[in-house]
Amino acid sequence: MVHILLVACPDRTGLVHAISGALFRQGVNIIRNQEFVDHEAGHFFMRTEFSGPFDEARARGELAQALPPGAEVRVATDAPKPIVVLAGKEPFCLGELLLRHAYGELPARILAVASNHPNLAPLARRFDLPFHHVAHDGLEREIHEARVSAALERYAPEYLVLAKYMRILTPDFVARYPMRIVNIHHSFLPAFAGANPYGQAYRRGVKIVGATAHFVTADLDEGPIIAQDTVHVDHTHSAADMAQAGRDVEKLVLARALKLVLQDRLFVYGNRTIVFE
Amino acid sequence: MVHILLVACPDRTGLVHAISGALFRQGVNIIRNQEFVDHEAGHFFMRTEFSGPFDEARARGELAQALPPGAEVRVATDAPKPIVVLAGKEPFCLGELLLRHAYGELPARILAVASNHPNLAPLARRFDLPFHHVAHDGLEREIHEARVSAALERYAPEYLVLAKYMRILTPDFVARYPMRIVNIHHSFLPAFAGANPYGQAYRRGVKIVGATAHFVTADLDEGPIIAQDTVHVDHTHSAADMAQAGRDVEKLVLARALKLVLQDRLFVYGNRTIVFE
Amino acid sequence: MVHILLVACPDRTGLVHAISGALFRQGVNIIRNQEFVDHEAGHFFMRTEFSGPFDEARARGELAQALPPGAEVRVATDAPKPIVVLAGKEPFCLGELLLRHAYGELPARILAVASNHPNLAPLARRFDLPFHHVAHDGLEREIHEARVSAALERYAPEYLVLAKYMRILTPDFVARYPMRIVNIHHSFLPAFAGANPYGQAYRRGVKIVGATAHFVTADLDEGPIIAQDTVHVDHTHSAADMAQAGRDVEKLVLARALKLVLQDRLFVYGNRTIVFE
Amino acid sequence: MVHILLVACPDRTGLVHAISGALFRQGVNIIRNQEFVDHEAGHFFMRTEFSGPFDEARARGELAQALPPGAEVRVATDAPKPIVVLAGKEPFCLGELLLRHAYGELPARILAVASNHPNLAPLARRFDLPFHHVAHDGLEREIHEARVSAALERYAPEYLVLAKYMRILTPDFVARYPMRIVNIHHSFLPAFAGANPYGQAYRRGVKIVGATAHFVTADLDEGPIIAQDTVHVDHTHSAADMAQAGRDVEKLVLARALKLVLQDRLFVYGNRTIVFE
Repeated sequence: MVHILLVACPDRTGLVHAISGALFRQGVNIIRNQEFVDHEAGHFFMRTEFSGPFDEARARGELAQALPPGAEVRVATDAPKPIVVLAGKEPFCLGELLLRHAYGELPARILAVASNHPNLAPLARRFDLPFHHVAHDGLEREIHEARVSAALERYAPEYLVLAKYMRILTPDFVARYPMRIVNIHHSFLPAFAGANPYGQAYRRGVKIVGATAHFVTADLDEGPIIAQDTVHVDHTHSAADMAQAGRDVEKLVLARALKLVLQDRLFVYGNRTIVFE
Repeated sequence: MVHILLVACPDRTGLVHAISGALFRQGVNIIRNQEFVDHEAGHFFMRTEFSGPFDEARARGELAQALPPGAEVRVATDAPKPIVVLAGKEPFCLGELLLRHAYGELPARILAVASNHPNLAPLARRFDLPFHHVAHDGLEREIHEARVSAALERYAPEYLVLAKYMRILTPDFVARYPMRIVNIHHSFLPAFAGANPYGQAYRRGVKIVGATAHFVTADLDEGPIIAQDTVHVDHTHSAADMAQAGRDVEKLVLARALKLVLQDRLFVYGNRTIVFE
Repeated sequence: MVHILLVACPDRTGLVHAISGALFRQGVNIIRNQEFVDHEAGHFFMRTEFSGPFDEARARGELAQALPPGAEVRVATDAPKPIVVLAGKEPFCLGELLLRHAYGELPARILAVASNHPNLAPLARRFDLPFHHVAHDGLEREIHEARVSAALERYAPEYLVLAKYMRILTPDFVARYPMRIVNIHHSFLPAFAGANPYGQAYRRGVKIVGATAHFVTADLDEGPIIAQDTVHVDHTHSAADMAQAGRDVEKLVLARALKLVLQDRLFVYGNRTIVFE
Repeated sequence: MVHILLVACPDRTGLVHAISGALFRQGVNIIRNQEFVDHEAGHFFMRTEFSGPFDEARARGELAQALPPGAEVRVATDAPKPIVVLAGKEPFCLGELLLRHAYGELPARILAVASNHPNLAPLARRFDLPFHHVAHDGLEREIHEARVSAALERYAPEYLVLAKYMRILTPDFVARYPMRIVNIHHSFLPAFAGANPYGQAYRRGVKIVGATAHFVTADLDEGPIIAQDTVHVDHTHSAADMAQAGRDVEKLVLARALKLVLQDRLFVYGNRTIVFE
């Protein structure tokens, strides 16, 4: 088994030496080691992947001595993480994840799919996954979310993935999965507020459409960005064509972001991510 | 000499046949012909490049008969167009234009460079171009613009190019060059309002920075988009690194947009552009 | 129903006028019209999409009069075309096509999947499609192809799509589907001949991997190119990581190419394609 | 002053700890530290940027004890490196470098420009740089190179940059600058051998043109790749248009590659580069 040690703390001299020492003394075999210092904030980040017998308690004890106050230490492994996908009506992001999952290119176990619409049930079933339709019609947001939570509970997912799930989540719901909900949404230059963004983008004649994968926080669509990409469009693209071009980039960006998250390649610091690709 | 005929009008059957007939009867040689119908708006656009003797008055007469009311007919040529560049402090967009101009990759004659800062005077002089420093310190916007206009007047430029010219133009100034001022500005996903956008982008951890070239209208940065592109950045980019990555894409997008404009490849319709590349 | 008229012929004056006249006299409604003249070769290409009642025989008759000798005239419609997919072992290109097909983003009816390996049978079945395993072990190429042909015969496919089908096709087989077999393959800068190209690419330290979709001709991998794209990789990518990055771009390029083919947006001229996007 | 320590050696446990210890004991302030292990080859690479008083001899002594046999240790600084540019007839790559150099975005001192053609002399002079025209007409390759060497000698350049210098260099000349000559050349998918590659690319209908920056070795165009990028083209691009699109990407790729080289961000291992961006 491969372990991953993630350390974030105020920067000072000797951190790499101290952390690598704690690992060296256990004789583990370092596969990959990456550091980054945010010099503006004076903060240090280090991610180390290693194999071999590992005594986590001993390492945490040594690091507690060696690191400055306020240090954050995480230990993870490369075991596939349990996740649940929340989907809307749009099949392409969900389909991308299901295909990768079925053929071993997603370091996760997708345990179930839930949606406020019934239409993607056949897609989940094609890939032999339970599908939970949690209708939202006529329900207050809190009631609907309680039902979603009830449906998810048995799976104890480590992460929730919003694959074009178009419902706004309450701060309470988000607080139950801090930095553990990944969302994908279309992105434009310039940005468009309000309804039908592809219609607005079409009328504005944008030459690019994009996608942003981010963690969900209480501030809608304002959480730390994980991955982004764009694709060229032109005046011959109708709003529907732009949406299709957008979907192609959304599904790849979501898959890429999810892989980074599931392989513990990310730190969140303030409202930004440090990504060790 | 190559002529370019641009026709935009409400769509109806027979337009291609009618317009191509007007050219056919003059025996000109069509080099390239492109049409587009905006089906949402029911509007037709056609651009034809052709060589051979051309009687513009006769063609306009025939087209006036053949086209529906409200038709817009433009005739242009491939002769390099006179332009003036307004620059700020940042040398890279201006330098890109001067290099292309010097070596025949910009279909324009750059007649002069003007700026509210003196620092790019040596760059303009390296390329043997007049440089007008029109200081803005302590001046009201209208007064400053009047001085800029006075400096430009002798050149009678067909287009103004804003190469990182960081002054906001008044609606009055813009009205003197309708759809004849091209601007480039950085673009982000998401967008950032207010000062120091690269600083904001850094703190937000964006993974992409972009550039948008657009026509200047009375609504600042809201004019029809001509060209856009983006480039990837990551957490190791400081705000200054992001700005440099942004400059690399800005200068190419500006050069590409300018070429489209100068070759009369654009229609503006509503707030969008139809671009016949 | 939408019709598409495609005309390719030696260039001369008046072609647009003549062709648009043949359509104009039938009163059809032109949706989109695109022309291109290859000035080096002196060859003209025109694609017109139109709706309304259409008498094909009459139009062909008029065009036979109006066009120069050697003109090629094709008429197509927007009805989904019957296709068969030949797959190998790799599931991602096939999966991409099946997902798009299932959700209406591929203008085709996929009638069946055939493969020389059995492992993708479950994937085809997930999407309710017949799967034909035509084993090649111990068979001469011609014998194997005869069995593939026998399996395909009942479907009378208009196009064959090679979704990572790794068998070389004989010129005889290819001749049965002239410019009707679409293939996708990985592409590198520089190119690598021989076995295990991703291994070679890794050892060469390429910074880009790409994908090329092309028509299959008797010259392996040398047929007219339909679409291409690339993605960045770096030294941290193992050969397997490069292959995965390659797969992501391959499946999108194949889907994009296929859409262009199925919507009759292509001319093949010499060994190049004219693509009216 | 910032120092950069680069270590490459066979991998074994404890290397990060040992190397960081040698720096830690001198109390330097680590700005950035990156490692990579090539697990296929079992080779370790580490680049550390640091500030503060540094006793290089002492560090080298300690590292000689701590590192396995065959370790390569380099020490560099962030002082701009002296370089000379060899240009051909094409002005855009040279112009890009001169502009960046003039405005502080190239970590180098360009000391001179040399060329086998006279036509870029005015461009070098615009930027106040000496220009050496070393004509090649009627000269044997070795004689011409001896004259180029004589022209360069006084500058003692650390790197030579080939900015579209179209002469093949002899192994003898290359051997004088091992991994110290950076070249840029156009790249295609597929590759084209022989004369007029853009003409071949046009006739083949490629949809992408690219650029590769690499170190020059005795094997022409086969040296370790530093950076690559591509840009989309289509059937409307003439061979000349493709060449222009290629130049836009070539100049940016060359500038990016040069920055990586000049900031000592590269290891060459076998025929590949490890790039710590």
